[in-house]
Amino acid sequence: MLVVMQSHATDEQVRAVCQKIEELGYRAHSMPGAQRTAIGITGNAGEVEPSALEEMPGVQELIQVSKPYKLVSRELKEENTVIRFHGSNATIGGKGLAIIAGPCAIESREQAFAIAERVHAAGAQFFRGGAYKPRTSPYSFQGLEEAGLRIMAEVREQFGMKIVTEAIDHESLALVEEYADVIQIGARNMQNFSLLKRAGRSRKPVLLKRGMSATLEEFLMAAEYIMSEGNYNVALCERGVRTFADHTRNTLDLSVVPAVQRLSHLPIVVDPSHGTGKRNKVTPLSRAAVAVGADGLIIEVHHQPEKALSDGQQSLYPEQFDELMAQVRQIAPVVGRTVPGIVVASPAVEAVR
Amino acid sequence: MLVVMQSHATDEQVRAVCQKIEELGYRAHSMPGAQRTAIGITGNAGEVEPSALEEMPGVQELIQVSKPYKLVSRELKEENTVIRFHGSNATIGGKGLAIIAGPCAIESREQAFAIAERVHAAGAQFFRGGAYKPRTSPYSFQGLEEAGLRIMAEVREQFGMKIVTEAIDHESLALVEEYADVIQIGARNMQNFSLLKRAGRSRKPVLLKRGMSATLEEFLMAAEYIMSEGNYNVALCERGVRTFADHTRNTLDLSVVPAVQRLSHLPIVVDPSHGTGKRNKVTPLSRAAVAVGADGLIIEVHHQPEKALSDGQQSLYPEQFDELMAQVRQIAPVVGRTVPGIVVASPAVEAVR
Amino acid sequence: MLVVMQSHATDEQVRAVCQKIEELGYRAHSMPGAQRTAIGITGNAGEVEPSALEEMPGVQELIQVSKPYKLVSRELKEENTVIRFHGSNATIGGKGLAIIAGPCAIESREQAFAIAERVHAAGAQFFRGGAYKPRTSPYSFQGLEEAGLRIMAEVREQFGMKIVTEAIDHESLALVEEYADVIQIGARNMQNFSLLKRAGRSRKPVLLKRGMSATLEEFLMAAEYIMSEGNYNVALCERGVRTFADHTRNTLDLSVVPAVQRLSHLPIVVDPSHGTGKRNKVTPLSRAAVAVGADGLIIEVHHQPEKALSDGQQSLYPEQFDELMAQVRQIAPVVGRTVPGIVVASPAVEAVR
Amino acid sequence: MLVVMQSHATDEQVRAVCQKIEELGYRAHSMPGAQRTAIGITGNAGEVEPSALEEMPGVQELIQVSKPYKLVSRELKEENTVIRFHGSNATIGGKGLAIIAGPCAIESREQAFAIAERVHAAGAQFFRGGAYKPRTSPYSFQGLEEAGLRIMAEVREQFGMKIVTEAIDHESLALVEEYADVIQIGARNMQNFSLLKRAGRSRKPVLLKRGMSATLEEFLMAAEYIMSEGNYNVALCERGVRTFADHTRNTLDLSVVPAVQRLSHLPIVVDPSHGTGKRNKVTPLSRAAVAVGADGLIIEVHHQPEKALSDGQQSLYPEQFDELMAQVRQIAPVVGRTVPGIVVASPAVEAVR
Repeated sequence: MLVVMQSHATDEQVRAVCQKIEELGYRAHSMPGAQRTAIGITGNAGEVEPSALEEMPGVQELIQVSKPYKLVSRELKEENTVIRFHGSNATIGGKGLAIIAGPCAIESREQAFAIAERVHAAGAQFFRGGAYKPRTSPYSFQGLEEAGLRIMAEVREQFGMKIVTEAIDHESLALVEEYADVIQIGARNMQNFSLLKRAGRSRKPVLLKRGMSATLEEFLMAAEYIMSEGNYNVALCERGVRTFADHTRNTLDLSVVPAVQRLSHLPIVVDPSHGTGKRNKVTPLSRAAVAVGADGLIIEVHHQPEKALSDGQQSLYPEQFDELMAQVRQIAPVVGRTVPGIVVASPAVEAVR
Repeated sequence: MLVVMQSHATDEQVRAVCQKIEELGYRAHSMPGAQRTAIGITGNAGEVEPSALEEMPGVQELIQVSKPYKLVSRELKEENTVIRFHGSNATIGGKGLAIIAGPCAIESREQAFAIAERVHAAGAQFFRGGAYKPRTSPYSFQGLEEAGLRIMAEVREQFGMKIVTEAIDHESLALVEEYADVIQIGARNMQNFSLLKRAGRSRKPVLLKRGMSATLEEFLMAAEYIMSEGNYNVALCERGVRTFADHTRNTLDLSVVPAVQRLSHLPIVVDPSHGTGKRNKVTPLSRAAVAVGADGLIIEVHHQPEKALSDGQQSLYPEQFDELMAQVRQIAPVVGRTVPGIVVASPAVEAVR
Repeated sequence: MLVVMQSHATDEQVRAVCQKIEELGYRAHSMPGAQRTAIGITGNAGEVEPSALEEMPGVQELIQVSKPYKLVSRELKEENTVIRFHGSNATIGGKGLAIIAGPCAIESREQAFAIAERVHAAGAQFFRGGAYKPRTSPYSFQGLEEAGLRIMAEVREQFGMKIVTEAIDHESLALVEEYADVIQIGARNMQNFSLLKRAGRSRKPVLLKRGMSATLEEFLMAAEYIMSEGNYNVALCERGVRTFADHTRNTLDLSVVPAVQRLSHLPIVVDPSHGTGKRNKVTPLSRAAVAVGADGLIIEVHHQPEKALSDGQQSLYPEQFDELMAQVRQIAPVVGRTVPGIVVASPAVEAVR
Repeated sequence: MLVVMQSHATDEQVRAVCQKIEELGYRAHSMPGAQRTAIGITGNAGEVEPSALEEMPGVQELIQVSKPYKLVSRELKEENTVIRFHGSNATIGGKGLAIIAGPCAIESREQAFAIAERVHAAGAQFFRGGAYKPRTSPYSFQGLEEAGLRIMAEVREQFGMKIVTEAIDHESLALVEEYADVIQIGARNMQNFSLLKRAGRSRKPVLLKRGMSATLEEFLMAAEYIMSEGNYNVALCERGVRTFADHTRNTLDLSVVPAVQRLSHLPIVVDPSHGTGKRNKVTPLSRAAVAVGADGLIIEVHHQPEKALSDGQQSLYPEQFDELMAQVRQIAPVVGRTVPGIVVASPAVEAVR
């Protein structure tokens, strides 16, 4: 159920409706829009009895939401969600593409700074790096943990980039929300509902990666878990799905980008590094991701990929990332977007083939 | 690395080798077998320097393990793992098939007892039921939580069945290990490595379900996570994988049963309820699972499936479960297994088609 | 549309209805059943005007078929289709399981006879072998063509087994229908509609293999193509589908067996050789296929698999086929089936694990 | 095996080497390049004895081809294959993108001309339309057959567009090669090897669509079948693969474009109409396909999609196709390509979201 307020409804009227909803035993989610405020109601197994609400001052109409997801839905909020960051003009979901770059894992202060310097220079406003690594083997490098978070906080201080890093359980999430700017929930945890709820109680934005075999509905429902706890700053991330195809590590499903954008107001970025698993595929698929309409890119970059402790074969060299940025900078305007950073004169891509 | 002890090695010699391994900074996992004891070494990124160990009394040889999984591997332990339970002759991995049955979710004491009575009478030695339900929607019934666990403990007291129930995070795992006999890790959490490690520190056996798109190696590595923390009582569970096929909810991959059995000493059971998602497919696929060589079945049964709060369309009626048991009881001897419970004279299955 | 005749309707009345249907510009498919005859009507884009038919003598009722497939459907024909062969008690779809065995490809007279002797002795009533091989590479062995068919005809003469072999185009089909008893349409040609129609104009039974990524509906519609041309002797074959799983060559989808049996009267056999692609998986999955209710098995056997020109790694040694037969012979009675051949005393399967 | 000729080798020397290869019982495939001519050798099961060839005049070296595909491989031919058409500057694989557009099926002369006029005006140089339709149901519209081909020939005469249309068997291929400019082999026939060989004996270029679950290697091997018969004008087409995802009809795998381009010299176009199955996804995925580096697009356009006899839900309205062309025209230069047709001033895409 969704309460649409009149365009001239006062804040007080909105508050009164929310209060009434809570009194009825439900949860109210106020979503201000450019034209009007909508209030989502959750916590109801069946239908909400409308009579108590529809006659309240400022209420325009009550709408039954037709999808299993409510807060995620464009029915509730027509305008795109734009995630903003204090003291930065970087956004996720705004006109400027969100460019998130950095190593798979933070390995040392030296490594992090060497990479950060390069991706910052190339125009990235977000720095990614894993401090807690979900690895297939218990015997593989599992990340530097809090020490890694501390290094990333230094990177932010030095370069002004916002920090995106993964939390893998309640304990690491508490530390990630302390040190970082965006809490990443990885593909393997997309249906770790306990973790999603915990992220929903954080005040930091969440970057939710699509599970390896998640349907679009499951993906949106996972975001709904986060939003239902009150955190509305959720960005989605396509990172490839698992298929029979063996020429890439995963099959990057770019069609999910326009599909999400039809159904939801949430931004969606694309991770061609995990989506292909092969360095030589990252740049072409980054171009494609921007062209399809994604709100940003998340790219693995390493200054010495051959020595990386994880995912080296899919990490770009810094100069390859420069070239990637030059290319997407040319495509972005075609889809009405901009790419941050200094525009260096760059010829048309030579010899794509 | 794996230390194979001589067949006449004493307990003291085994202990001394384990102590030496720990002194070297690794972790020792002693696995006694019928003929000999093997000691797995984990915690080493690269190779272990063998000279310190190979000359110790009672050591026969040192073997480099060729697979990424070590403790899970038949290379380490040739004999099948049999999980035994105090005060019960039920096993998982023994000659008798492990029959685990019950509702998807515990809904009430009445519901649980009504179903428990029927599945117990039909021969099930394990009672399953969800107290913590990982649901796609945050607005769906999420389980009775601790109250559900308490009801299951009463079922155990009344009927003597061992309790199998899912833990979804650290908090629920602490309660599940207190109340239940087997901790289930669900498909969505198969790569929730933090939860796997926590389960590895429990003294209760773990039933690990295969993720929806997990390869065999990822499945075994998830079990390795549990075992690497010291809990060697792990049973695997095939529950269907996600494919393009739409005539069943998932595609039950029975070939994984002999595949696991070649590579690992761990038992593997099959869940045809989730594996097919359709009531009319559960019994034929249960027959097939026993015939392929599975160590047990996990079956959803509900006395009023049409009123079930979850998964009603895949739950058997109690009389259908009786029939299922009669059928698998006839197939089990062909694969050298037995099925618990009273053998009722039963004619050959009529009209399978 | 489907015309159900009264149980006492005469042959003449059936013929008159069929004639009327043809006069109306449609095609009539008479399907005699134990209780009654049903007449399927095809060739109509929309609905057939019923008034012309429903008042004819002997007509009981007209039924709108609810599925896209008509002739394939159990709505049209309730009884199972049993494919019978002249001068043999072998059937596909009868009480006795159809056991089809032989090499992947016919390589020489000596090879064919050596294998035929063994599979015949073990109880197979059908001999399979490829004379036209659809190979991924144009440079691989493509089969002995007509010479291979001639060898198989000799095998039939010598051992009395019926011959099953694949046709890959119109030209080879003309020869296959001349020499063989069952025309196999392979997985890669499941939607080669031109070939299906040609097979539908043959008087020989057709074994139709499921395509690598065919849905159940597409599978049944492919059979409908054959039947719509007038050939009602169609047997289906599950041979594994393509998924992300890499422990077998394909993922054998045994749930399709009961799914087919609910919707269709056509028999369905299982091919665990292609379905797993690994010799050590063939016997366990054969047991499972019989237990799930399949109407038969198609098994690759080679007396020298290591020298086979194709598919050696999935071919059983003759003695493994003997053991497979001993095992399925024990499972068959549980599902109300028999297995042909001499019943040799055989103990319960030892050491399935 | 591959014979690399010296850069200054004469035509006569090339002919002599080819003749020698044929005398040895193999088949020679001469592939002239900008710098040198290479001669592929096929028909050899194992290795070719090199001594007979390496000392011949004009031979630089003999190279063992490391892939199962030979003629398809960049090892044999470094330069991109560009398919050219008599009396037209349209190419497939050249600098200009190949834009192929038209209805799913030719339904009538009026329909074909109405659509042709629009797509021609928008810049398409190729007209597509099905005269032989491989339909899932035998009762669905199967195409106008030769009458459809005749209409397309008239379209060519009127508008100068080259005709692309599907052949489904030997019989239709004979007619398609007579009337059309490009013979399309559909996804369902990608491993109809008999048809591939027949297309390989045609002198018309072939557009080969990827099978629904074809790996990259299988896709390239299918092209190898065509080339091994002597037809070197083959273009590949990605049209989506089958996965669990249900928000699109297929999952468009754009990563296969750079993957093909690394391994093969053949051009590859993308079909976002079948690749998504939804009208509202066609334009974004077309942008992405051009951005990823595809050599062209194949787009379904219908002037009255709601009345189309097939695939109406994925056909663009002509004005949507105009808009698509305007958008890809802006992206093409970024990847060093051009788009044919009149460049109409077009603002940046508004509101992609």
